[in-house]
This record gives sequence, structure tokens and C-alpha cells, in this order.
Amino acid sequence: MTKTVADIAALVQGEVRGGADKVLKGVAPLSLAGPEDLSFLVSSKFADALSATRAGAVLVPKKMPVEAPITLIKVADPRLAMAQAAWAFLTPEIHPAGSHPRAVVDESAQVDPTARVYPLAYVGPKAVIGPETIVHPLAFIGPEVKIGARCVIHPQAVLMKGVSLGHGCIIHPGVVIGADGFGYAQRPDGRHLKVPQQGSVVINDEVEIGANSTVDRATFDTTAIGSGVKIDNLVQVAHNVKLGPNTILVAQVGISGSSMIGANCVLGGKVGVADNIKIGDRVMIVGGSGVVTDIPSDSIVAGTPARGRMTNLRIWQTLPELPKLVRRVKELERRLAEMEARLNQEKKG
Amino acid sequence: MTKTVADIAALVQGEVRGGADKVLKGVAPLSLAGPEDLSFLVSSKFADALSATRAGAVLVPKKMPVEAPITLIKVADPRLAMAQAAWAFLTPEIHPAGSHPRAVVDESAQVDPTARVYPLAYVGPKAVIGPETIVHPLAFIGPEVKIGARCVIHPQAVLMKGVSLGHGCIIHPGVVIGADGFGYAQRPDGRHLKVPQQGSVVINDEVEIGANSTVDRATFDTTAIGSGVKIDNLVQVAHNVKLGPNTILVAQVGISGSSMIGANCVLGGKVGVADNIKIGDRVMIVGGSGVVTDIPSDSIVAGTPARGRMTNLRIWQTLPELPKLVRRVKELERRLAEMEARLNQEKKG
Amino acid sequence: MTKTVADIAALVQGEVRGGADKVLKGVAPLSLAGPEDLSFLVSSKFADALSATRAGAVLVPKKMPVEAPITLIKVADPRLAMAQAAWAFLTPEIHPAGSHPRAVVDESAQVDPTARVYPLAYVGPKAVIGPETIVHPLAFIGPEVKIGARCVIHPQAVLMKGVSLGHGCIIHPGVVIGADGFGYAQRPDGRHLKVPQQGSVVINDEVEIGANSTVDRATFDTTAIGSGVKIDNLVQVAHNVKLGPNTILVAQVGISGSSMIGANCVLGGKVGVADNIKIGDRVMIVGGSGVVTDIPSDSIVAGTPARGRMTNLRIWQTLPELPKLVRRVKELERRLAEMEARLNQEKKG
Repeated sequence: MTKTVADIAALVQGEVRGGADKVLKGVAPLSLAGPEDLSFLVSSKFADALSATRAGAVLVPKKMPVEAPITLIKVADPRLAMAQAAWAFLTPEIHPAGSHPRAVVDESAQVDPTARVYPLAYVGPKAVIGPETIVHPLAFIGPEVKIGARCVIHPQAVLMKGVSLGHGCIIHPGVVIGADGFGYAQRPDGRHLKVPQQGSVVINDEVEIGANSTVDRATFDTTAIGSGVKIDNLVQVAHNVKLGPNTILVAQVGISGSSMIGANCVLGGKVGVADNIKIGDRVMIVGGSGVVTDIPSDSIVAGTPARGRMTNLRIWQTLPELPKLVRRVKELERRLAEMEARLNQEKKG
Repeated sequence: MTKTVADIAALVQGEVRGGADKVLKGVAPLSLAGPEDLSFLVSSKFADALSATRAGAVLVPKKMPVEAPITLIKVADPRLAMAQAAWAFLTPEIHPAGSHPRAVVDESAQVDPTARVYPLAYVGPKAVIGPETIVHPLAFIGPEVKIGARCVIHPQAVLMKGVSLGHGCIIHPGVVIGADGFGYAQRPDGRHLKVPQQGSVVINDEVEIGANSTVDRATFDTTAIGSGVKIDNLVQVAHNVKLGPNTILVAQVGISGSSMIGANCVLGGKVGVADNIKIGDRVMIVGGSGVVTDIPSDSIVAGTPARGRMTNLRIWQTLPELPKLVRRVKELERRLAEMEARLNQEKKG
Repeated sequence: MTKTVADIAALVQGEVRGGADKVLKGVAPLSLAGPEDLSFLVSSKFADALSATRAGAVLVPKKMPVEAPITLIKVADPRLAMAQAAWAFLTPEIHPAGSHPRAVVDESAQVDPTARVYPLAYVGPKAVIGPETIVHPLAFIGPEVKIGARCVIHPQAVLMKGVSLGHGCIIHPGVVIGADGFGYAQRPDGRHLKVPQQGSVVINDEVEIGANSTVDRATFDTTAIGSGVKIDNLVQVAHNVKLGPNTILVAQVGISGSSMIGANCVLGGKVGVADNIKIGDRVMIVGGSGVVTDIPSDSIVAGTPARGRMTNLRIWQTLPELPKLVRRVKELERRLAEMEARLNQEKKG
């Protein structure tokens, strides 16, 4: 869909400098944009790129004193404005309504007439699928699963029995929600007796879960994912975990059983959180960290075990000196002993 | 299914204090349990919770001197008793027998008449599926796969050609067993020639493998998973690996090629084991550790590279002092040099 | 297929010592090989195994001064020769041509008549599938996907809309290519607005991707995987990443968004690479490392943060001395202060 610069400015609450009537067709970064593309400058650090771009118009930070020979739209947050504009240019995908005859939909399932179930998808007994939700080919919707409106369930995604999804969720390919949590009791002979995982998973509105991630069902009550949570690929969320609203888990994060993470946190790639940990709100955890203690709200932590980011940075910077430090201390001990001996001798002498 | 307190006590070999005729309907933790629930106290540390619970009866440690105004069942191991009782309350799932007409089952496959193959599952040529085994929708059972009795193969699980499973195994959604191991020879020009992975995977009885985990086929012989092994989600088991009986791999563990792990080990979440490593029996490896050397039986190790747990703990505790230590050593060197100079001068003087 | 020793020697450009007419049936390691097997000795370190093997013939390094009472084939690189020979012994799998009636193939898709689409596979609108490519059961080929010749798409693999594959690629079960990259803009109220991921994924010839790995589509242009790249299981390749030819990613590696990795690199298991990192050619990264800075070509790095391998090794070796070092420095400070006091007193005295 085409839009004028003025259309975009209105959408993103921006102020135009230049040709407001110019017609744009899409969004592209400065280096790739052509004359019909809207581009964006997230920080004045990259302002040099403005002179080289062929973009038709550029979203720039409101506070930036830019004078460039191209059309600018000044906005509070160019990245946010870019995302808003990008959606405006996109033609929404059209899906036919109804269940394809080559899908397998149990007769006791309730599929909203505006929802779409693609061929080779499976919808189990008593499942409920909300308005305008899309179930792609080869997805598995288990018995008694409840899916709200406007969700997208991608191919090979698996929603096990009784899992519940809010509205506007996106479940990427290969995601498994509601498989059994990992719980055993040990028999005296060393064999493990499975603890039946009787709970479920409740996923709130606007949650997105990345490809091949896993969210296990609770032992007794629910594994709960707050609204607006965004989970990247290959992430593990164990049984009984609670994630607060808008929290972000980057790829390959693992959250162990019964840990609770607050709202608006960001856990970087590969972060591991031990079991029964409590993490507050707005906590940032640097990628690769291992969290083994509770973390209060508004902290930034890094490393294994996770500590304050600056403390960890100083450790990282100092570590290469450690081998030399050992030698220096040895040398100090030698010199000091020598001096002590000398002083003692002088005393005697 | 309902049970009396006396029924449960008989099942778990426990001793009742209180109303043996009370009827119970299920298991729940102390905080969630109602008057028809059995609950459990795993340790006397949490004994305070007993006064607040509404549970109908509580499993408590035999040795604990509890006097509470509620019905107690004293047992050797409350967690084990809880798991045993939980199974007794559960109504077993009923599955129809036979292959659904919308499953694709090769005519040369042997599916036991008591087994169930759900719609959209695929069973390849010469596969053998044992009694009472359940193959869920969208599962892939490759050619010549052999599955024992009472297994559950969940949706989207993949058992590649020739893989063999014992009895009572549970394969969770998205698990891939028997994909090619990762082996190449390098050509003089830097390109990699795939080494054909001709071996297979043998999985013994009562093994459970968590969602989206992968177990590769061997290069020549077999990747072997011992009986009673429990594997969590997103775990990688490379080609030629051997896992001893009852060993536990927590989520996101990775075992590199040809490593051998003994019986009754526990590898915590995200542990990595290098290739060709030998790990003994009853070894505990703390989550996040990186194992690059062999580990003898009955060890507890932690860190990267993995060392004795206490050694690692002391390193973890001391690391934050390292940056200051560098400054302290520098200061010591300065003071010592000053003193040496002073002494030399006094000598001369 | 059987081969004579002379056949194999010709294939691998080797020199025979012993019976050139001996008939062989396959390849096996020294410990497992029988009289009809070809075996291999990758290094003279393991030469003792030669005396015990029952192998019919053994590939040995050309430069090794071996005299053994068995047939030898001297070659430049026994591992490469073994892989070449192994393929010669294998009977190629035969697949029927055409789409199975129980596959779902969109009528606008172009499936080469020599390609095979197995039952329960899905091929979307305008997808193009090249000659002799095999699409296994339950695979998902999205709209407008382009697959070259001689590819193998295993069960449960997912190729999302518009993804492009070269010739001779192997996509293992559960792989997801072209799911949305993980990109959001933050709204003033803390909620995340998804940045539409409009780019695609381009995978060049002879690429192999291991089970349950994920390669995300780019935000704007392409995520690009060079020819001959080999990716192990459970690996994450984020949006906009570029991987140079013949680079190897071992299991559970994670590459964050927009990072660029050169040709012929090897990233060991569980390596994490931060976003927007540039890694040169022929870089080796030891398993478990965390890369947070650019790395020049021909480096070998290890640890977190990744440093030169020897630097990291010395840190690893010295770390256990750290707790004692703290005590030693404290003791030095005490002794030095004592001496300083003594000297000052003597001066006064």
C-alpha cells in the first residue's frame, strides 16, 4: 500500500521537513532504501549516513539538529515510528475462513467461523479456536485447548491438552506449549518415578513465542506467561514458571522450574536462571549470564554467577592479569622474606 | 478416582495419624490443597505451612515429630509417596485401538492391534509398534523403527530409520531421534565431505525425552540411552554417546560426540560436555558447567572448566575481589620498592 | 555394494600394501571391523590398534612407517579417504518420483517430475521444488519457497514463505528456516511493537542444517548462509546474520542478530556470539565461549569474554589459586606494614 509522507507523519505523530506529498511504498534501512522508501535514523551517531542515502524520506529524532537535503520526519522515537509505518505499508495477509477438508478437526471442537484451519492441521476434542485465528498446516491443537482471537499458530507448533492462549498471540513453528514438566521422585533403588504433571499453561494476550521454544505445563497449577511477553527461539520455560508482562527472553534462554520473573525484564541470549529464583521488574540480564540468586527490581546483572554489570565488567577486564598476578605475588613474597631476613640480621649484627 | 486415607497409606507404606476413612480426590501442594486433597511436606523446614493448610491429609517425613490438628500419613519419603499417590488418583487416559484411517501407515508396518495410531501420524515401511503404544497425530515413525510396549510418541516427534525404543518410553513433542550425527572430513580445498552416519540409536526401557530434544544416530554402531534415563527439553545428545541407566539430563544440556556418561548421574541445565569424555556413575554436575576432562564416579563438579564444587564456589566468591587485588598488589610493590630503596640508602648512608 | 581393495585405492588415490584383490563390503572403526570391512587409522598415535584389528584393510597416513601383517592403503588423509570410501559402499536410497496423493501440494507449486513429495507433506502456493529433491512426510514447504536440485527435506522441517535453498542441501527434522526475526520497538508504556520481518533467508549449495535448528528471516534484506556451511542441532541463527562458505556451527551455538562470520570458521558447541559482531575467516572458537567483540581472521579464541586460547587457558589454570592468592596478599600487607612500623620506630629510636 502506498502512503504519502504526510500520511506517515500523521500516523507517527511526526513533523515533516520537506515534501509532504511525496509517495512512499515501504520501509528500508538507509543503505538499502530507494526513492520510494521511508528510512530511519535511530541515533545522531549515524547521521553521516543521511548524506549518502537515496531514501525518499527519513524518520529522525525530534531533538536532532538535522539539516539534510532530503525529506525528514521528526519523531520522538524513530525506531518505534519505523515499526508503526512498516505495518501501514504492509498489505495484510488474507486467509480463507473455515477448516480445510484435509485438516483433521474433531467434531466436538469449536472453531469460530472466521478462523482458518489449514490442511494437515489437527484440532482435538473440545478445543476452542477464536475469531480470525489462523492455524497453519501441520500444527497440533490438543484437546480442550483454548485459543483467543487473532492468534497465528504456525506450522508444526504444538499446543498440548488444556493449554490456554489469549488474543493476538503468535506461536512460531516448532514451539511446544504444555508438554510435561520435568519432575521425578527417586525410588530407593535409584530409578525415577515420574510426578504426574497435572497443571496447565496460561498464556496471556499479545505473547509471541519463537521457533522451537518450549513452555512446560505446571505440576499442579499453571505456568503463566504475562501479556506482551516476547520469547525468541529455542528458549526453555520450565514448569510453574511465572513471567511478568512485557518481559523479553532472547534466544536459548532457560528458566528453571518455579522461578518467577517480573514485568518488563530483558534476559539476553543463553541466560540461565536456576530454579525457585525471584527476579523483580525491569531487570536486565546480560547474555550468557547464570542467575543463581534472587535479583531485585531495576538491576542490571551479568556473568556467572550473575552480579552487578560493572562488577562483572571489572572482573572480565582484570582476569587476563591473573596469571601474572600470581607470579607477582610470589615475587613479592620472595623480596619481602629477603628484606625481613636482612633486617633481622642487621638487628643481630 | 477417590481414595481413602487408609488406601493411600497402604499404597505408600505409611502410618496414619488421624482420620483413616477420610475420602480424598487428588494431590496438591500445601498452599493450594483443599479438604479433599492429599498434600505433602518434603522437609521439616516447611513445617509452619502445616498450620495454614486446608489439606484433607498430609504426607510427612516419618522421622519428623509432627503434632498437627490434621490427618497425617508418615512415610519414609514424602515426595516419592506423593508421586505414587498422584498416579493412584489419576484416571488413566483411554485411547481407541488401531490406526485411524487418516493416519498414513505403510502396509509393511506391524502395528500391534492394541496400539493406537492417531490421524496425520506417519508410520513407515517395516516399522514395528508394540502393544498399547500410542502414536499421536503428526508423529513420524520412520522405516524399520522398533517401538516396544506402552510407549507414548507425542505429536511432531520424529523417530528416524531403524531407531529402536524399549518399553514404557515417553517421547515428547518435537523430539528428533536418529537424525544424522555431525561428522565431516575436510577436503584440501576447505570444503567438508559428510561422513555417512550408518549407525543407529538404541533407547532402553522407561526412558523419557523432553520436548524438542535431539539424539543423533551413531557413525558406525549405536548411540545408546540406558533404561530409566530422563532427558528434559532442548537437550542435544550427539552421535556415539552412551548414557548409563537412570541418568538425568536437565534442559539445554549438550553432550558432544562419543562421550560416555555412567549411571545415576545428574547433569544440571545447560551443562556442556566436550567430545570423547568419560564420566563415572553418580556424578552431579551443577547447571551451566562446561566439562572438558574425565570425571570419576561420585564427584560433584561445577564451573567451566568443571572442578570440584567447593573449589568452584570459592572461586566464585573470590572473583569480585580480583580487580581490587590487582590494585593491592601494585600498592604492595610500590611500598616494598620504597622500603628496599630506603634500606639501601641507609646502608650507604 | 562390494569393492576390492584396488577399487578403493583408486578412488582415494592411495597406495596398496598387501592384497589388492580382497573384497570389502563396508567401513568400520578398527575395534568393530571384520574381515570384509575397510578400516582407518587417523593418526600414528593409535598405531597399536592395528595389531588387534580384524579389518580386511586399513587406510593409514602416507607418511606413517607402518609395517603390519594386514593390507594397508596409504593415503594423504585417512579420515577423508574413509568418508569417500564409505559413500562408495553405500547403496543409494531409491525414492519414487512425484507427489504422493496424500501429500498436500498447492496447484500453483512447481514440483520437478523427478522430485518426490511424501504423504502428509505440505507444499504451498508458488513453491518451486528442483530435480531429485526429496520432501519427506510432514515437512512444510511454505508459499514461494525455492528449493534447488538434490536436496533432502526431512520430516517436520519448516521452510517459511519465500525461503530459498541451493542445490544439494540437507535439512534435518524439526529445522525451522525463515521464521520471523526477533525485533521490537518499545512503546512509551513499555509494551513492545513487533517490527515486521520483511526479509528472507538465502541458503547456498551443499548446506546441511541439523535437527531442530532455527534460521530466522531478515528484517529487511536476507539472512545468508554460504555454500558448504554445516550446522549441527539446536543452533540459533538470528535475523540478518551472514555465514561465510564452509563455516561450521556445532550444536547449541547461538548467533545474534546482524553478526557476520567469515569462511571456514569453526564455532564449537554452545558458543554464543553477540549482535553486530564481525568474525573473520578461519576463526576457531572453542566450545562454550561467549564472543562480545570482533575477531580477526585466523584467530583461535576461548572463554567468556572470548580471548586468545592460550590466554584463556592460563586464566583457567590459575583460577583455582585465586582464593589462596587473596589470603597471600592479605598476609603480605600485614608483614609489610609490620616492617614499615619497625623501620619507622628504629629511625625514631
